[in-house]
Amino acid sequence: MKLNAAYGQLPPAFFFTEIGARVAAYRADHPHEKLLRLGVGDVTGPLSPVVIEALRRAVGEQSRAETFHGYLPETGTDFMKAAVVSYYGRRGVALSPEEIFISSGAADDLGAIGNLFSTDSRVLVAEPAYPAYVDTSRMAGRRVLPLLGTRENGFLPLPGDDLDGDLIYLCSPNNPTGTAYTRLQLQRWVDWANERQAVIVFDAAYEAFVQDGDVPHSIYELPGAETCTVEICSLSKTAGFTGMRLGYTVVPQALTREGCSLHDMWTQDRTTRTNGVSYVIQRAGEAALSPAGLRYNREAIAVYQENGRILADALTKAGLWFTGGRNAPYLWLPCPEGMTGWAFFERLLREAQIVVTPGEGFDAGGAGHVRLSCFGSREDTAEAARRLRTVF
Amino acid sequence: MKLNAAYGQLPPAFFFTEIGARVAAYRADHPHEKLLRLGVGDVTGPLSPVVIEALRRAVGEQSRAETFHGYLPETGTDFMKAAVVSYYGRRGVALSPEEIFISSGAADDLGAIGNLFSTDSRVLVAEPAYPAYVDTSRMAGRRVLPLLGTRENGFLPLPGDDLDGDLIYLCSPNNPTGTAYTRLQLQRWVDWANERQAVIVFDAAYEAFVQDGDVPHSIYELPGAETCTVEICSLSKTAGFTGMRLGYTVVPQALTREGCSLHDMWTQDRTTRTNGVSYVIQRAGEAALSPAGLRYNREAIAVYQENGRILADALTKAGLWFTGGRNAPYLWLPCPEGMTGWAFFERLLREAQIVVTPGEGFDAGGAGHVRLSCFGSREDTAEAARRLRTVF
Repeated sequence: MKLNAAYGQLPPAFFFTEIGARVAAYRADHPHEKLLRLGVGDVTGPLSPVVIEALRRAVGEQSRAETFHGYLPETGTDFMKAAVVSYYGRRGVALSPEEIFISSGAADDLGAIGNLFSTDSRVLVAEPAYPAYVDTSRMAGRRVLPLLGTRENGFLPLPGDDLDGDLIYLCSPNNPTGTAYTRLQLQRWVDWANERQAVIVFDAAYEAFVQDGDVPHSIYELPGAETCTVEICSLSKTAGFTGMRLGYTVVPQALTREGCSLHDMWTQDRTTRTNGVSYVIQRAGEAALSPAGLRYNREAIAVYQENGRILADALTKAGLWFTGGRNAPYLWLPCPEGMTGWAFFERLLREAQIVVTPGEGFDAGGAGHVRLSCFGSREDTAEAARRLRTVF
Repeated sequence: MKLNAAYGQLPPAFFFTEIGARVAAYRADHPHEKLLRLGVGDVTGPLSPVVIEALRRAVGEQSRAETFHGYLPETGTDFMKAAVVSYYGRRGVALSPEEIFISSGAADDLGAIGNLFSTDSRVLVAEPAYPAYVDTSRMAGRRVLPLLGTRENGFLPLPGDDLDGDLIYLCSPNNPTGTAYTRLQLQRWVDWANERQAVIVFDAAYEAFVQDGDVPHSIYELPGAETCTVEICSLSKTAGFTGMRLGYTVVPQALTREGCSLHDMWTQDRTTRTNGVSYVIQRAGEAALSPAGLRYNREAIAVYQENGRILADALTKAGLWFTGGRNAPYLWLPCPEGMTGWAFFERLLREAQIVVTPGEGFDAGGAGHVRLSCFGSREDTAEAARRLRTVF
């Protein structure tokens, strides 16, 4: 019996537990202070009325033998795939339903997409990053080469002529830095991948937050992306579905390597490793991507976008350099005076009763930074902005 | 760029598509004949009233900000884990909530559990079998050694002294053969695994169909199983959840190999590769395992069990040797006169208008057999039994 030795080499997943413990300890000592939570990467809900109505209808169908749904296609129902096709069509991206794979959320597909590649593939990860890209790669025994976001490159690393790798994870708009590649910048990655026969895994989970016209929502808005990119997305932030679990992955039929169709390989992977997503959740997703659902989502997101403006304004007035707050629900800033993210976390907690996320939770290049999130209420965010300006 | 070469070596997943195409062709030529479907491995529903009520309540919670649920623990909510703890407690199996990992169904966990083991582990699979055990092992580059079920061993292979392997997949009650290990038989596997430091992956998806007192529902009813077994189960057949997608995996804290805790490794795997299961679906699962839910499930399963008796009776009266129909919703029989499963499938379709599943879909040892399922209506099953007796 030999276990997968890579697991033992990963750091324990204590990060958010540690934040929770520190916050709880502070709260126990200061029971009357109001804490403002800018650390959370979660939506506050509720779901839109049109989604609730679709859920109720689907539950009703499951209550009667004549309308009951058992096993569904592993890669998604026709109606949910059609909803995603239409969602992409609004931005001029023409996908076929077969190219869309409905999932229980982006995390699940990010956890499995690496299966398609040889374990000796060289994996590039634009960092700091959501830890799953690096962790799942290491769990499979793959070598990870960090591609560092820095203040100099505006936390948007780009490929140089000498950059080499087989697989690259890009997240734009970015968690945790809040940055987003423009069309011109992202085109450089597409061209690089096509030239090198590399594959881009593009995490588009925050696409619904894009406000600037020169920032693409989907990488498929760019010519050539269909021959080099797998795009993974989620309704978590688009439609407040973090607790509902629904996402999708696009693997274009034009994406081939070494004479093999990655689309066919992913079909094989999904039909073998999963039995698809709940009927009622897929009906909820269809409703979330309907015109009425999208209108509601836009209004919900506008609240978070306004929070981003409020926080960005406060940091600007305090004379601080930061990224994000415009095309993504996060702001990212270097800690003052060379502090670690954890030290600055403690300072903001003690001096301003604000909870942020230390950059140390986002792999290479994250240390010495903190992430602020825009998912709080308007009132709490405005109060946090006031307190931030008193700290600086 | 190197892809995972194992994918290209798997047979294309055409099996159920091929059955569908043959049935559609027959139906087009014989539009007025009534087809009886004994090929399906799916429930006919509907969900129980107590589950529907729980779903409606959970949907209502998601419609209001004060009761809205966003991200949940990756390994399952406390309430759903408590429901599973209590479900096992009824049979005298004491699990702790931490040992239970809630999933989107057994297929998803079967697709990922192999991650914990080295790619050069030797995998034994008791066959014929649900194809995912072999396919996911091959996709990871592992060597698969089939352990054949035969008429001689009653399709219940047992370990001999010379049997060697690191990982073994067992499914009891079994899909497709309908057989089930007794306590004494299964204890031999537990003892073998503990002696060799092997690990059993025990698929208990059909446990709710067990009728015989000497057949365990869970492998943890046997002493020593907690130090050698991961048990994977599903509410698909227990509570008619095939279209709802909910299951769970038990990884005992006592299960260690090479000084590592498999429980800790699986926790790390799940928290990295998934963000858990939908809140509303977990509330449905909690209701399905409540006393009222379990009463309803038992009645639904009693219908399928009676179908099993009807089919078993017909085959017995026709003088045919077969397995199953008692502790699982399947019957398995060798085809007459050395026919292939596909040839016998065609004969039953043409002579009796009965759709069965050719054994060729269940890997090694499946060829030359067919599987009959008990998931039809009482009337269709009784009519199928009559037609079977005229064929033989």
